[in-house]
Amino acid sequence: MTYELILLRHGESEWNAKNLFTGWVDVDLNDKGRGEAVNGGRLLADAGLLPDVVHTSLLRRAITTANLALDACDRHWIPVRRSWRLNERHYGGLQGKDKKQTLAEYGEEQFMLWRRSYDVPPPPIDDDNEWSQVGDPRYAGLGDEMPRTECLEDVIARMLPYWDSDIVADLKAGQRVLVAAHGNSLRAVVKHLDSISDDDIAGLNIPTGMPLVYRLDDDLRPTVPGGEYLDPEAAAAAAAAVANQGR
Amino acid sequence: MTYELILLRHGESEWNAKNLFTGWVDVDLNDKGRGEAVNGGRLLADAGLLPDVVHTSLLRRAITTANLALDACDRHWIPVRRSWRLNERHYGGLQGKDKKQTLAEYGEEQFMLWRRSYDVPPPPIDDDNEWSQVGDPRYAGLGDEMPRTECLEDVIARMLPYWDSDIVADLKAGQRVLVAAHGNSLRAVVKHLDSISDDDIAGLNIPTGMPLVYRLDDDLRPTVPGGEYLDPEAAAAAAAAVANQGR
Repeated sequence: MTYELILLRHGESEWNAKNLFTGWVDVDLNDKGRGEAVNGGRLLADAGLLPDVVHTSLLRRAITTANLALDACDRHWIPVRRSWRLNERHYGGLQGKDKKQTLAEYGEEQFMLWRRSYDVPPPPIDDDNEWSQVGDPRYAGLGDEMPRTECLEDVIARMLPYWDSDIVADLKAGQRVLVAAHGNSLRAVVKHLDSISDDDIAGLNIPTGMPLVYRLDDDLRPTVPGGEYLDPEAAAAAAAAVANQGR
Repeated sequence: MTYELILLRHGESEWNAKNLFTGWVDVDLNDKGRGEAVNGGRLLADAGLLPDVVHTSLLRRAITTANLALDACDRHWIPVRRSWRLNERHYGGLQGKDKKQTLAEYGEEQFMLWRRSYDVPPPPIDDDNEWSQVGDPRYAGLGDEMPRTECLEDVIARMLPYWDSDIVADLKAGQRVLVAAHGNSLRAVVKHLDSISDDDIAGLNIPTGMPLVYRLDDDLRPTVPGGEYLDPEAAAAAAAAVANQGR
């Protein structure tokens, strides 16, 4: 038995385009991002890799990406599951800030620590900050689990319980699973699947809107390490561009 | 305890505009229909009636209506449930046919029997008809329940098990439930809720894109018979227009 998993990072959002730290701020896709989502769905259709079930975060840019991609491959009708555990990394007090300005203000070393270190979170966000999600009804049930900032290690810690329960359950039921989520929640999935070290994960960039297909064996290990992009050349070029963000 | 239920009929589809019988054919909304869906979501936001969970059919026009309406009221992140039992009435051999032409071909009496009688289904569709849904993967699990034509009585018979199990379960859990569906599957819900007779249901028309709110008592009976439209004047005008379709 081979299990099939498709990871899809949301397309460009209004804040990606403005180069702002977004995190849990619920911004929309822009037109380019919508186009990327539709294109992602067409790639799935062309490859005959039609999802049986979709998992999304609770953020609009991932949800709309899933809606548009599934509509484009005629799979708008499949079951939908959502969890905050697939949300983007919470960027703490950096949410809403300009990346270039943050780089100039705090310097290259601190900037890269916040962006790419495994275990150094940005300063926590104040509850009365305009970009705080405290009080948002979608997170009402989280209680003490509500983050005020996160490093990648934190994202992995809150993502894994959902992987182990909900996503694995669908895979083991023989469903082809689409996960529509974010740069960092998908890096968390990939780190887990490919057993990437805490140091090496810093260099891994997932491009937007490009389906990344993992075929998993009985022990849920990838048959091809790193998975396979449906459009590998475009994916390599896009990943290089992500690595240079903020420069 | 009062339970809150919101019914939303999808906006205008490409085939509504062309005046074709649609049924289970999975046509898309047109631009007017998309606008109606967004407007429906804004009415919910203005009324402070934000859904906690959404139920849809397996048809694109209801799914997209739900997606757009929920996005417009900032509830894109709520749990989603889908069932073929909320699908539009299967229109049998009439699917894909022009309503005006059908009226001319079969005469007023037969035409109105098919459109509005309680228990006279149109002729069944052949499996090799281009508008048949036999073989569509979303209905793979239906087996003998797969309809080839339906009258309203048939719609009620297949809708009610879903009402009794899934929708009532969400209502009793205290969730405000949005049902995004179709003219006839929503007439089936309304007939059940308001105990409308088999004869009187013929005269009931539900307008597109206008949220219809039912508050239900402990026995799931409406506190206001017929429910309440969030925009009652527009709803009355639109219902009159629906009644004249095909004329």
